[in-house]
Amino acid sequence: MTDAGAARLPGENESGIEREMRALGAAARAAARELARTPADAKIEALNAAATELRRTSGDIVAANTRDMMAAEDKDLSEAMLDRLLLTPERIEAMAVGLDEIARLPDPVGEVIAEWDRPNGMKISRVRTPIGVIGIIYESRPNVTADAGGLCLKAGNAAILRCGSESFHSSRAIADALRAGLKSAGLPEAAIQLVPTTNRAAVGALLAMHEFVDVIVPRGGRGLIERVQREARMPVFAHLEGLCHVYVHGAADPAMARSIVLNAKMRRTGICGAAETLLIDRAALGQLKGIVDDLVEAGCELRGDAAAREADARIESATEDDWTTEYLDAILSVRVVDGIDAAMEHIAQYGSDHTEAIVTEDAEAAERFLNEVDSGILLWNASTQFADGGEFGMGAEIGISTGKMHARGPVGAEQLTSFKYQIRGTGQTRP
Amino acid sequence: MTDAGAARLPGENESGIEREMRALGAAARAAARELARTPADAKIEALNAAATELRRTSGDIVAANTRDMMAAEDKDLSEAMLDRLLLTPERIEAMAVGLDEIARLPDPVGEVIAEWDRPNGMKISRVRTPIGVIGIIYESRPNVTADAGGLCLKAGNAAILRCGSESFHSSRAIADALRAGLKSAGLPEAAIQLVPTTNRAAVGALLAMHEFVDVIVPRGGRGLIERVQREARMPVFAHLEGLCHVYVHGAADPAMARSIVLNAKMRRTGICGAAETLLIDRAALGQLKGIVDDLVEAGCELRGDAAAREADARIESATEDDWTTEYLDAILSVRVVDGIDAAMEHIAQYGSDHTEAIVTEDAEAAERFLNEVDSGILLWNASTQFADGGEFGMGAEIGISTGKMHARGPVGAEQLTSFKYQIRGTGQTRP
Repeated sequence: MTDAGAARLPGENESGIEREMRALGAAARAAARELARTPADAKIEALNAAATELRRTSGDIVAANTRDMMAAEDKDLSEAMLDRLLLTPERIEAMAVGLDEIARLPDPVGEVIAEWDRPNGMKISRVRTPIGVIGIIYESRPNVTADAGGLCLKAGNAAILRCGSESFHSSRAIADALRAGLKSAGLPEAAIQLVPTTNRAAVGALLAMHEFVDVIVPRGGRGLIERVQREARMPVFAHLEGLCHVYVHGAADPAMARSIVLNAKMRRTGICGAAETLLIDRAALGQLKGIVDDLVEAGCELRGDAAAREADARIESATEDDWTTEYLDAILSVRVVDGIDAAMEHIAQYGSDHTEAIVTEDAEAAERFLNEVDSGILLWNASTQFADGGEFGMGAEIGISTGKMHARGPVGAEQLTSFKYQIRGTGQTRP
Repeated sequence: MTDAGAARLPGENESGIEREMRALGAAARAAARELARTPADAKIEALNAAATELRRTSGDIVAANTRDMMAAEDKDLSEAMLDRLLLTPERIEAMAVGLDEIARLPDPVGEVIAEWDRPNGMKISRVRTPIGVIGIIYESRPNVTADAGGLCLKAGNAAILRCGSESFHSSRAIADALRAGLKSAGLPEAAIQLVPTTNRAAVGALLAMHEFVDVIVPRGGRGLIERVQREARMPVFAHLEGLCHVYVHGAADPAMARSIVLNAKMRRTGICGAAETLLIDRAALGQLKGIVDDLVEAGCELRGDAAAREADARIESATEDDWTTEYLDAILSVRVVDGIDAAMEHIAQYGSDHTEAIVTEDAEAAERFLNEVDSGILLWNASTQFADGGEFGMGAEIGISTGKMHARGPVGAEQLTSFKYQIRGTGQTRP
């Protein structure tokens, strides 16, 4: 196959793509049925073999990545995007380590979530099962191919991976390694399939085929997420935005407030758990100078409301847009609030239901915040940057869901399962 | 307000209805925020007060129902539909008892589902929360108004109820009682709202307003479910069909097979857990005569494949359609299968993922069936008619979900919740 043809299906046109995608879906469905009865050991073997194959073919993967990088440079992509696209032997090793870690996670399938007996003697168990087929649509990072494919496999699901066009050759080389791992463990190769075309019509076809795909996980920018939420004919585990707040309450410990705000904003500004807005209680306004000292020294720009600017002249003027902007950069919006109700009201109005922290020594205020704020992750006296499945001790994650259905917060192997009821009787009939 | 106007909004037209529905949605969203922080006691008080009010206004509800019944008789509805629509003092008392039972269920909100500590000292809890706003669209049975409204309230959710046009006056009278209960407990009356129009455009508006409605539960015939699945812009807990199978394995106890098949099919033929297909193993074919004796005596019609007809002449000829028909009537399709794999293959191909039973004394075969069949409820040596939240000991249910996302099987108060992570720290920042 020539290079030009690599990302194109034979005779490619819209109905041809739909046909190809449906064939992919049917193969995934068949593989999922087989995976559902695959013992834990075989999945572990496949994951370890895939890791070995990633290491063995590291040079080929780097070469494939080089082709993607050259094309990307021609396209004038930003430095940040180029960095996300780049694969090095170290990054490939990290993917392999990730697969080995997923292999070591407890197998969620078959776990008894609850069990109880009925007065008539029936024994009821609620048991974890795979979901079926997971579709993952992602943008530039090619390592999602290994992370998402591996996590779906662990949970007994077949995966259909649709990578960004910039990372197609890299993703294909990684998918080849995963397939080799499946094959060597005797599992169906269709358990992890990469969409073999970069044509955008394939995304539409994927989102339409609800009979073959049980859930879609989009990973990327707002445009992608919104398209998926609009078009998908199946449930979506979406991470819309991480517009995270830190609320410094009147009873905050000043040193703790400084270190948490600095860490929440500046440790890494580009991750979804990075704080974007500081809500400072009027009763804690005396703490603002110290907080701003740290942030300014770390190179952070501040944009605040009138009360904040009055308290500290280094704060620029914020507009209404600032309260709803996920900067993912060294910028923090600052608002002065009158008490915890005003803080929670601000979060309800402007937040993205992702992650929020309160800093306070007042346990009663903290418990109200933890109970009443309707976000997936609430922290008391800890940094929002902990919003990550690994930091939760849940292992690898396929993303962080900002939705409330099925999966919320980090989406790991357990969240990629469903369940069923098994009832063991001795001939019971219903009166 | 005149009778004719009762089911119509002022100045009703499509954009007017959309506006009214959005106002309903916004009120529900506000009520949901308040309910999320309502203590268990206040919800219990509202449920008990609603039960009391149902009893107190029983005469008014019967009178409202009489209007619906008269209109229904003019429309030549079937006897079965008229029976579903009918309210009697006894049925109203049963609704009140149902609300009192929901009041006594454990409150799911705030339940700690899991908790663990991290090496850095952070304490993580996964805690149950309400979902938010639940939309319920139902057909003739007016008692759904009380059952669904009560169950949503128990789980801390606001409910928007859209009843069938035939039951509008009955449902409104019941909703009035629920609202009186909310009011007397000091809860927002918008916690349970009945759509105040029978115009079908209201359904379209409800399915579109994903910013106000978190999940839709359709209860009714296939046409309704399919419309909802097609149009809803939010997740759906749908009960598509109960095409339940009983598989009589070669190692079945003959007496048990007879009593389970008879009960699964004939106890009540109109419920979703009623068996529609008997799969009889060729190795158990000697048991068929006794099974057919019981069914024929109970008035059941049988339709089978060639092998079944050859074994018993009382079985009529089945067509391909019979394997996919939910009769909800005294008809059973019968197929002879060669072993458990063929039985599971038949279920995978024709089933609706609802409820299936195996009758066998062979524990190994039973465990394969329980583990490998991908339905919400699997029973070993017990009747499919147990597919019911009450029979599971889970309390009232809003329906049985045939989907695999979030809720599967009986949808009770617990399944109407989401969860969040609460993290309690002592100043932890992420390295």
